[in-house]
Amino acid sequence: MAVIHTDDSGDPRLDDFRHLSTADRRPDRPGGKGLVIAEGTVVVSRLLASRYPVRALLGVERRFAELAGELAGTDVPQYVTSAETMADVVGFHLNRGILAVADRPAPLTVDDVVTGAGTIAVLEGVGDHENLGALFRNAAALGVGGVLLGPGCSDPLYRRSVRVSMGHVLRVPFGDLTDWPGGLDDLRARGFAVAAFTPRPGSVPLRELREHAPGPVALLFGAEGPGLTESALAAADHAVRIPMPAGVDSLNIATAAAVAFYELASGG
Amino acid sequence: MAVIHTDDSGDPRLDDFRHLSTADRRPDRPGGKGLVIAEGTVVVSRLLASRYPVRALLGVERRFAELAGELAGTDVPQYVTSAETMADVVGFHLNRGILAVADRPAPLTVDDVVTGAGTIAVLEGVGDHENLGALFRNAAALGVGGVLLGPGCSDPLYRRSVRVSMGHVLRVPFGDLTDWPGGLDDLRARGFAVAAFTPRPGSVPLRELREHAPGPVALLFGAEGPGLTESALAAADHAVRIPMPAGVDSLNIATAAAVAFYELASGG
Repeated sequence: MAVIHTDDSGDPRLDDFRHLSTADRRPDRPGGKGLVIAEGTVVVSRLLASRYPVRALLGVERRFAELAGELAGTDVPQYVTSAETMADVVGFHLNRGILAVADRPAPLTVDDVVTGAGTIAVLEGVGDHENLGALFRNAAALGVGGVLLGPGCSDPLYRRSVRVSMGHVLRVPFGDLTDWPGGLDDLRARGFAVAAFTPRPGSVPLRELREHAPGPVALLFGAEGPGLTESALAAADHAVRIPMPAGVDSLNIATAAAVAFYELASGG
Repeated sequence: MAVIHTDDSGDPRLDDFRHLSTADRRPDRPGGKGLVIAEGTVVVSRLLASRYPVRALLGVERRFAELAGELAGTDVPQYVTSAETMADVVGFHLNRGILAVADRPAPLTVDDVVTGAGTIAVLEGVGDHENLGALFRNAAALGVGGVLLGPGCSDPLYRRSVRVSMGHVLRVPFGDLTDWPGGLDDLRARGFAVAAFTPRPGSVPLRELREHAPGPVALLFGAEGPGLTESALAAADHAVRIPMPAGVDSLNIATAAAVAFYELASGG
């Protein structure tokens, strides 16, 4: 146990936790990307249980006590301080009371993400950090094996995505699909049927997807609004829609994904 | 057509649009509740097509042009101004460029909400305006006939709920279920099976709900976190869960509702 009490907000050992509102941009770090930041006991405990190398924790006594079980035996530095000092360090009052920071591990390969998975999600142009985080939460809740990020997606390890995902971005395997849309052919070669979501008439109602794709499925989603590109749609095996009444535009992307994850998870 | 050009941010005819960030609290109006405010062309057009009595619109020329079809023949005052004047009036820069305000019509009765509906949602303790708005959007997209609000729910006509719902709070009928949980017996007497969502073991997997409830269904949801009260659970006919892997807490309430709406809409 490395428990360190400090009330000096200038303590250089707390530098990883400074100015959280801009912590996602770190020109001094590899790729300009920030550390992974977990906020609150639920997300911190998921980080501790993950493959991510935790660097340090900062929090108030009460929150450390709630995590005593998860922290037993770890030698990660645990900086215990007051809510006021914590606010001085991070730049605002953080009512979750505990933070952990971790390094980014080596990215997973497509192989790592898809091997053994029954259903995966593949995203194109999903730039909104909240939608991305929510999609990972839904993937975890509904048994999706992994997420592949095509072009135009934002970084699932941004602070806001980690928070909205409830820490599930740290559990659900993800990686980049850099060859686009050619990487979809690679998924097909691995045994996945590629099903692209689009409101177009003529696409298969989600309820019937299982009849066409009884094995592993890669569910392909574009951003709310623009949707998938023509080239992505052309590279898919099936076009799928969630039937909706006239006059309704669409569901939020993370919600549409949840409905699709549910449909495939529940057997069909 | 009542098109009025103005560049005077002090114009008293624009008072309905002032200080939008606090517009939900209006001690000077019935029940202390604000007017209904629609932001952006999509939501404004839904407001224009609704039963809500529109009082006025305020926006920039370009946005009015986009709504020309919807506005043809209306005699509602349309205040055309600059983005700067609009920002002065509402208190911040509003990049959606158009607003409409409406009076609150008389509330719907339970009878109005449920008559003819195949599936309805009944909410207890859903206080979060974003979740409430998202739930209405999902209800509209997945064919739910109406929403009843039990104790502890917030006001679906708050500005943030209207926005997050994409204006669907103005289309999906809703009303208060004031007798609680006795009002659930009333729904049962009207032919609805009452299905309460809870993660409890022993509850019916959502996929099997239709076997138990082939007719109209009232889907009962509590707030994320606390869930439904014991008395609400006791008053239901069925306890239902969305099956999830171990170690996952739950879905967001609006997302869980979407999955349930989908399951019932798609026939089972």
